[in-house]
Amino acid sequence: MPSLTQFAFPALLLQASGGGEGATYLTITLAISVLSLLVAAGFARYVLAQDTGTADMQKVSNAIKLGAEAFLKRQNTTILWLTVVLAVLIFAGYKVGKPDDPNIALRMTFSFVIGALCSVAAGFSGMWVSIRANIRTASAARNDINQALQVALRGGAVTGLSVVALSLLGVGILFYAFGGLEDPQHVPHQIVAFGFGASFVALFAQLGGGIYTKAADVGADLVGKVEAGIPEDDPRNPAVIADLVGDNVGDCAGRGADLFESTAAENIGAMILGVALYPVFGIQGVMFPLLARAFGLIASIIGILSVKVKGDEDPMNALNRGYYVTTAFAIGGFYGAVHLLLQGNMYLFAAGVVGIITAFLFVYITQYYTEYKYRPVMDIAKSCTTGPATTIITGFAVGLECTAMPVLVISGAILSSYYLGVNAGLNVGEQAAGLYGTAIATMGMLATAAYILAMDTFGPITDNAGGIVEMSKQPEEVRKRTDRLDSVGNTTKALTKGYAIGSAALAAFLLFSAYIDEVKLLLGKAPDSPFPIDIGHVPVFTGALIGAMLVFLFSSLAIRAVGRAAETIIEEVRRQFKADPGIMKGTSDPDYAACVDIVAKGALKAMVLPGILPIAVPVLVGVCFRLFASPTDQYPVGAVSVAALLMVGTITGILMALLMNNGGGAWDNAKKYIETGAYGGKGSDAHKASVVGDTVGDPFKDTAGPSLHVLIKLLSTITLVAAPLFI
Amino acid sequence: MPSLTQFAFPALLLQASGGGEGATYLTITLAISVLSLLVAAGFARYVLAQDTGTADMQKVSNAIKLGAEAFLKRQNTTILWLTVVLAVLIFAGYKVGKPDDPNIALRMTFSFVIGALCSVAAGFSGMWVSIRANIRTASAARNDINQALQVALRGGAVTGLSVVALSLLGVGILFYAFGGLEDPQHVPHQIVAFGFGASFVALFAQLGGGIYTKAADVGADLVGKVEAGIPEDDPRNPAVIADLVGDNVGDCAGRGADLFESTAAENIGAMILGVALYPVFGIQGVMFPLLARAFGLIASIIGILSVKVKGDEDPMNALNRGYYVTTAFAIGGFYGAVHLLLQGNMYLFAAGVVGIITAFLFVYITQYYTEYKYRPVMDIAKSCTTGPATTIITGFAVGLECTAMPVLVISGAILSSYYLGVNAGLNVGEQAAGLYGTAIATMGMLATAAYILAMDTFGPITDNAGGIVEMSKQPEEVRKRTDRLDSVGNTTKALTKGYAIGSAALAAFLLFSAYIDEVKLLLGKAPDSPFPIDIGHVPVFTGALIGAMLVFLFSSLAIRAVGRAAETIIEEVRRQFKADPGIMKGTSDPDYAACVDIVAKGALKAMVLPGILPIAVPVLVGVCFRLFASPTDQYPVGAVSVAALLMVGTITGILMALLMNNGGGAWDNAKKYIETGAYGGKGSDAHKASVVGDTVGDPFKDTAGPSLHVLIKLLSTITLVAAPLFI
Repeated sequence: MPSLTQFAFPALLLQASGGGEGATYLTITLAISVLSLLVAAGFARYVLAQDTGTADMQKVSNAIKLGAEAFLKRQNTTILWLTVVLAVLIFAGYKVGKPDDPNIALRMTFSFVIGALCSVAAGFSGMWVSIRANIRTASAARNDINQALQVALRGGAVTGLSVVALSLLGVGILFYAFGGLEDPQHVPHQIVAFGFGASFVALFAQLGGGIYTKAADVGADLVGKVEAGIPEDDPRNPAVIADLVGDNVGDCAGRGADLFESTAAENIGAMILGVALYPVFGIQGVMFPLLARAFGLIASIIGILSVKVKGDEDPMNALNRGYYVTTAFAIGGFYGAVHLLLQGNMYLFAAGVVGIITAFLFVYITQYYTEYKYRPVMDIAKSCTTGPATTIITGFAVGLECTAMPVLVISGAILSSYYLGVNAGLNVGEQAAGLYGTAIATMGMLATAAYILAMDTFGPITDNAGGIVEMSKQPEEVRKRTDRLDSVGNTTKALTKGYAIGSAALAAFLLFSAYIDEVKLLLGKAPDSPFPIDIGHVPVFTGALIGAMLVFLFSSLAIRAVGRAAETIIEEVRRQFKADPGIMKGTSDPDYAACVDIVAKGALKAMVLPGILPIAVPVLVGVCFRLFASPTDQYPVGAVSVAALLMVGTITGILMALLMNNGGGAWDNAKKYIETGAYGGKGSDAHKASVVGDTVGDPFKDTAGPSLHVLIKLLSTITLVAAPLFI
Repeated sequence: MPSLTQFAFPALLLQASGGGEGATYLTITLAISVLSLLVAAGFARYVLAQDTGTADMQKVSNAIKLGAEAFLKRQNTTILWLTVVLAVLIFAGYKVGKPDDPNIALRMTFSFVIGALCSVAAGFSGMWVSIRANIRTASAARNDINQALQVALRGGAVTGLSVVALSLLGVGILFYAFGGLEDPQHVPHQIVAFGFGASFVALFAQLGGGIYTKAADVGADLVGKVEAGIPEDDPRNPAVIADLVGDNVGDCAGRGADLFESTAAENIGAMILGVALYPVFGIQGVMFPLLARAFGLIASIIGILSVKVKGDEDPMNALNRGYYVTTAFAIGGFYGAVHLLLQGNMYLFAAGVVGIITAFLFVYITQYYTEYKYRPVMDIAKSCTTGPATTIITGFAVGLECTAMPVLVISGAILSSYYLGVNAGLNVGEQAAGLYGTAIATMGMLATAAYILAMDTFGPITDNAGGIVEMSKQPEEVRKRTDRLDSVGNTTKALTKGYAIGSAALAAFLLFSAYIDEVKLLLGKAPDSPFPIDIGHVPVFTGALIGAMLVFLFSSLAIRAVGRAAETIIEEVRRQFKADPGIMKGTSDPDYAACVDIVAKGALKAMVLPGILPIAVPVLVGVCFRLFASPTDQYPVGAVSVAALLMVGTITGILMALLMNNGGGAWDNAKKYIETGAYGGKGSDAHKASVVGDTVGDPFKDTAGPSLHVLIKLLSTITLVAAPLFI
């Protein structure tokens, strides 16, 4: 986005040179962000400079590229139209709801649109590189696994870096443009719509992409592997290209948008909490989240550059080493940021370390529940021997169980960072100090976000590379190399989801508090006045009940969309097999494009209803529950009920996302374990049962689960933006 | 329990004759309860006087009887030992925690033990009749469907009437014995342990029975129907007797204990809320719940007596007519009770009608989601054509979706009854008046409980009758008659679950408020002082998060227990088929007893951990979170965090129970729909997929779902009893 910075930078530099600590730190933040974008561009050049393989490989890769770009174009068209509608509603709502504030309607609308556009750009740029990195990774795998890993990881890093840098640039420039350096106590509230715009786009991107990828995958697996008995990625399967396209639009573009809105929403939320500490830290408390994140970007770049596979080692070890390097530098950067901006307060630094430890624990718990080294997946694999029903029962039980440890970790993290904040010796109320502690912990957890995201996007690139190698019939040794990378990619994908839900849970408090501060500001109350969200009061409890229900209903719509779209593709593949027996013999090519087209249509149609639900429900509750306002209430019942909806919706969303992500991952790996030869190996009845489990888990872990991450944050940002309606 | 009433009655009659309105109404309540027990005894005599069929039929029936009684004896031994342990803990806890109150430790312990014993008695008596009514229903079906229906329904009515009457007698006598007529403002708080005792036994009864029934069912289905290809209830299947035993111990004894604790806990909760209205209604407000329930008993008896199948009509119509009759008389009785005790307040009467309407709506919504006349089940059936994976995905989506309407209905019911209470012109605070309105609605919803429970127990009796007819190879026309009754029984079982979860949801508020009142009483605060449960406060939010997680973990343990026990029975059946090929040929008898024994052992072992969890977690949270007490808090943080745990746990529990019950019911009926000939009918691939769905749904709808009803109320009663520890 150099065009945006062009205007802001010269003026900002002038201001920075004229003194003002805020200006200096903002300049540093924006400079680091631009630098990171340049590094990302460098990685993209590196990737594009690689060899593009044989003509056969290019044929497959081009089909994927065409399908992915066509889908993303269609999807973005739909999203942009919805954005225009919502922009008009926001503008009109603020004009009517807050007529006394001349700037707010325009600023909110502008922030919203910029947030939405940046999110589209982040998703698109990530996918643009990834659909070009896949063939280059495949080609590199013909020679050397280390080179293949470099191509895939640097391709992934383009997404990781541009997502985090764009969110910092967007928030930073809006903050500057709205006069945040002069009025840091009010401007953070005016850019919340940036987070909402980002969440809004992320929800549709994740839903659309998630439905696409899993409908294609479920469809391809069911008719291919189960019915026709052909292996995964077999070129005779008409749905195979759609499946490979899906990896890009779901995992790359979707997850990119997801993490873009995470970083954006959490930056803004933390800045709002920093406002409550204005008496202690001045503008520095508001700027801290941005600078800490910028330092995290540098740590991630160093980490990515440090990754190298030594000899014949497991590529996962190399990636883990990179993660440790990133973490070490992130802790150092965090210490520096605390030293520069927060008077070197060691309690707050400790809160940041709590966040970093939480990230680690989440990664380990996710591994325990989804890798076949451990009991849960082994249990599922064993239950496969008694058929698909027991496979599902056991897997579902594992999914339900896996919520326990993360909840205890998050509870520990929230409580300890809160009380670190309380005891940090800040001269503000207990609540404000404690919540700033949780905000710092969130920043700590997210310090390594760019590296994690690079690892995540690594997954679909290697998956695609494997598909290209398989379909273009490369020699066995090349396949072995891509298989190894692919299996590493599966692990990193699972870990990122654990990380994403962990950070969403930790950030939840930060966003609730931002909402509460917003309501207080709207009512002209002091930031430290009490705001009890008493779920013992009947309308508030009802709001909470509806919030939890919303999560169930949303998950239902997301899953059902996959089931429906998958059914259409199954019918299409069956039709093709029947119409042309040459396909199965390998003598004639199947019609890949028809499958790609059918899923795209289905996914876009299906994403609209679940996408609108989490926007409409909180607004309806907030507006309708104003009816219940009684004169004895300190705060409007509508606003309080929405807070309860938000909190209990978030709790339910975290649990449901854990269930979906880990349950799905566990089924997937139980199948992989059986494919190593256990319980009869491939082709056995146990294997067939495990395929059913894997298929059921697909929409859980790749559609509903990741969409719930976005839902949680969308609930926070929509309530922030719509707050004036509830009062 | 005539021995208990022997002591209480003469003294009470004396007191009643000496004036005192409380004594009069209590006498009426107890008299109606005793009368209902006599009617139940009459129904039992009627059932026992029926013909017991052929020797073949008796052979099957005796095997069921033996298995069921042996299991219940073992189960009750385990439960009684656990009860002794807990009784000691309660006594010691109150001795240490409240040394200033000399009576409380003994009274609490005594109430707890009586509650536990009454619950065991209610479960046992219901099952005692039901395992004798099954063969008599089967025998009657040889002549006439109406007579068979009468036997089954009256057998069910024994459970229905004795459960409700015993709970009234228990609460009423304890109230009297503790001096409630003289001190009606404190005694209701002293008998909360009766409700806890009942919930405690109910949880183990429902868990043990639920695990037993579904492990046997899943095991029998998977090896019988799917692997060996023999029909349900085929005598060659070694697990078939265990399956039939399971219907009795799970559906009869388990559900009986479940509804016993519901009525007990809700009566006590409503009495405690009545205390807050003491300034308005005096003792009458406290007595109202008991008298209203007693009138409901009379309405249910009339309803049961009115049921008659006319000519060739659907037996379901006859049962529905009985339900309408019961409802009409229940409304009349409710009006009478409001007139006698609540000054004829029409707002409160309207709140009761809200409860009755809620019961109706829940029954209809449950039908919509679980009958194959409607879209949801049809969708699942269609998805069966694309294999088991899409069957599971679609069914799970239906289960998630089905939470939406009930939540809206419950929200509407809670809000409208609350504001009816607020506007009823009572001279107490808004909160107290509103909550009494919701209590009245709960009483309205539960007025027809005895009839509903009779319909529910009708289910396993007809199911067993069908099994006996099948196994003793009766003529085709007899089978057709029992099949018709069995299918009606499936419907009534599903409806009862909808009703049970609806009443649990409506009653939730009543039990929360009882807890809050209890805490206020313990702290010596006025009943109308505010008690905000602010989930915006970090420790309180953490409590809420743990409450929601508890529901997930509990469900996991319950489901997994079924999966494990089912795996052992599958191995046993496979072993028997292999060891003796004569079994499949029908030349030698399988070893039924071995299967019965294996499941019993597995179920009892598996019920302990999930049973202890919901007792230990709230107590741990309440005690540990006292650490976080800060001087600015009005109430101890431990007590408030437990309240949040309770409320959010209840919300999550309601949603999860709806998902489990309706999802499971929908899969079951999708299979039944295909068995009518749709999508290829029996034996087709779609049918095989539907059997997988049905099997997955079994532990959902018959183990985890119903256990969650109990869990919700156990959380309320354990927190009530353990409240002194949190302060």
